[in-house]
Amino acid sequence: MKIIVDAFGGDNAPVEILKGCALAVSEYKANIILTGDEKKLKTAAKENGISLDGMEILHAPDVMEMEDEPTTILKAKSNTSMAVGLKALADGLGDAFVSAGSTGALTVGATFIVKRIKGVKRPAIGMVMPTDNGPAFLMDCGANSECRPEMLHQFAKIGDVYMSAFFGIDRPRVALVNIGTEETKGDELRLEAYKLMKNDGDYNFIGNMEAREFFLGGCDVAVTDGFTGNVMLKLSEGMAKFILNNLKKALTSNLKTMFGALFVKKSVYGLKAKFDYKEYGGAMIVGVKKTVIKAHGSSDARAFKNSIRQAIECVNNDVANRMQKAFEKE
Amino acid sequence: MKIIVDAFGGDNAPVEILKGCALAVSEYKANIILTGDEKKLKTAAKENGISLDGMEILHAPDVMEMEDEPTTILKAKSNTSMAVGLKALADGLGDAFVSAGSTGALTVGATFIVKRIKGVKRPAIGMVMPTDNGPAFLMDCGANSECRPEMLHQFAKIGDVYMSAFFGIDRPRVALVNIGTEETKGDELRLEAYKLMKNDGDYNFIGNMEAREFFLGGCDVAVTDGFTGNVMLKLSEGMAKFILNNLKKALTSNLKTMFGALFVKKSVYGLKAKFDYKEYGGAMIVGVKKTVIKAHGSSDARAFKNSIRQAIECVNNDVANRMQKAFEKE
Repeated sequence: MKIIVDAFGGDNAPVEILKGCALAVSEYKANIILTGDEKKLKTAAKENGISLDGMEILHAPDVMEMEDEPTTILKAKSNTSMAVGLKALADGLGDAFVSAGSTGALTVGATFIVKRIKGVKRPAIGMVMPTDNGPAFLMDCGANSECRPEMLHQFAKIGDVYMSAFFGIDRPRVALVNIGTEETKGDELRLEAYKLMKNDGDYNFIGNMEAREFFLGGCDVAVTDGFTGNVMLKLSEGMAKFILNNLKKALTSNLKTMFGALFVKKSVYGLKAKFDYKEYGGAMIVGVKKTVIKAHGSSDARAFKNSIRQAIECVNNDVANRMQKAFEKE
Repeated sequence: MKIIVDAFGGDNAPVEILKGCALAVSEYKANIILTGDEKKLKTAAKENGISLDGMEILHAPDVMEMEDEPTTILKAKSNTSMAVGLKALADGLGDAFVSAGSTGALTVGATFIVKRIKGVKRPAIGMVMPTDNGPAFLMDCGANSECRPEMLHQFAKIGDVYMSAFFGIDRPRVALVNIGTEETKGDELRLEAYKLMKNDGDYNFIGNMEAREFFLGGCDVAVTDGFTGNVMLKLSEGMAKFILNNLKKALTSNLKTMFGALFVKKSVYGLKAKFDYKEYGGAMIVGVKKTVIKAHGSSDARAFKNSIRQAIECVNNDVANRMQKAFEKE
């Protein structure tokens, strides 16, 4: 197995990416293909004392910048580390691609270079989030800010395959995020999507779910449009930060709490990892023929390593092929 | 000043409502008009040893049930404690109305009995939420699951008036919740709303805001459609519960943490109040001529008392009249 890595994507490229790859090589015996400027990569590795064992470099002189229009990846920016990596994936040089670069460009590139699965209307972004009942899958997290009912129906199917293949969950509970549980709740999009989802026997549709139940473990797959999903993802990120900031203040507010903190802080700060969706790796560009992982833009070495682990597990669990099979019937 | 209270709204009516009113009478010297079945109210007060000092009763034999269609409040259910209270408010018997009953029915009733402010397209639900930078106003929280751009523009105006009048914030920072900060981000609704908001000099529009910034204090007024706002409200409620559940587990996980917890628990559990939006009172039905507060359905006496306090402060700060004035120019 070979994992292709965009060495010049994200805020901390290339050093943290290289460190993350080195961790993945040593922990998972991963084989890595780095894409990016060969000379710069070798210099960065040398200067930071990072071994490139287990890694090869596929030269790509350019970098996809955050402010670049996503569609430029197809032409003007086709020599970027991201574009070269996606082409290498499409050509079969590796089994999965991981990038911490621009989500928009990666989605466009995955769609037109790696290509959509036949039958899938629109690729989307899926994300595994921590809940009180273990991991749950949320999609679309932002690729399609306007959705049609059939798209939500397909997201359900994709989420179902992912949660069964990746986590081995038997008949994942698939819910439609809505503002009430009754069948008659929500806007036109939800009303129509509900009907499609209810009439599909392929997955275990449990109906509408209010957003309150998401983190309390109300479903295994939460289906929503890309606008709402993106808001859910970002809101929870901000709220976790808000709560943890205040928790820290509470533990250090006076001598008494500081004394008590000596006994609880390991356990309490350990919660941070539990609420941190980066622990599960990155987001997935789903609906395309191969595994494409979007690591968080601010990924440090550890977070990037987790994204590589996720890519490896996707390949081991044959996620991309199972996804293709699920859509063969369409 | 007189506050009209729906004594039969919510999960814990009438006992917790009566207790909350008694607390409000003793703490704020409030004058209360209770609406509901007179005999039942007197019996409940007697059986639970609650004094009815400072309260009068306006008899209403029926109750608006959660499963009732909201529009029935206007005809078939016009003898309910909620309908009678709204009529009393419209007739000037009191200065504000508080109910923990059905949000849908209360919104319909407020719109057609208390009536819309001239110029307001659609009343909506506004909610004050705790953030790292103090209170922030979120609307619409669920009255209008489909919105037009002009509606978002009006929500901005309403939120601006509320945050300046109620909290005395000078030029509240009004933001449009979106999936990116650039002017070109989001769906059609956001693109059009952005233009309207940008061109209005009446309030301090700070542009698009990603949901991540909401709890980190990124704005004073967050404007969104009723679907997204409801999802934000409910998601944050569930997430706070998820985190606090796990915090409790972390503090009681072993003897060492239990010992440490003795010194930190007051401070740490005190955070719960900080994240609990019920501390700020209830939701507001905004865009109608008088103050209508929707207390949380599961309100206990303390939460209900907070909603009465919020109603009193709205009246003291002349919120409803200021809102009317703001729309006179339209």
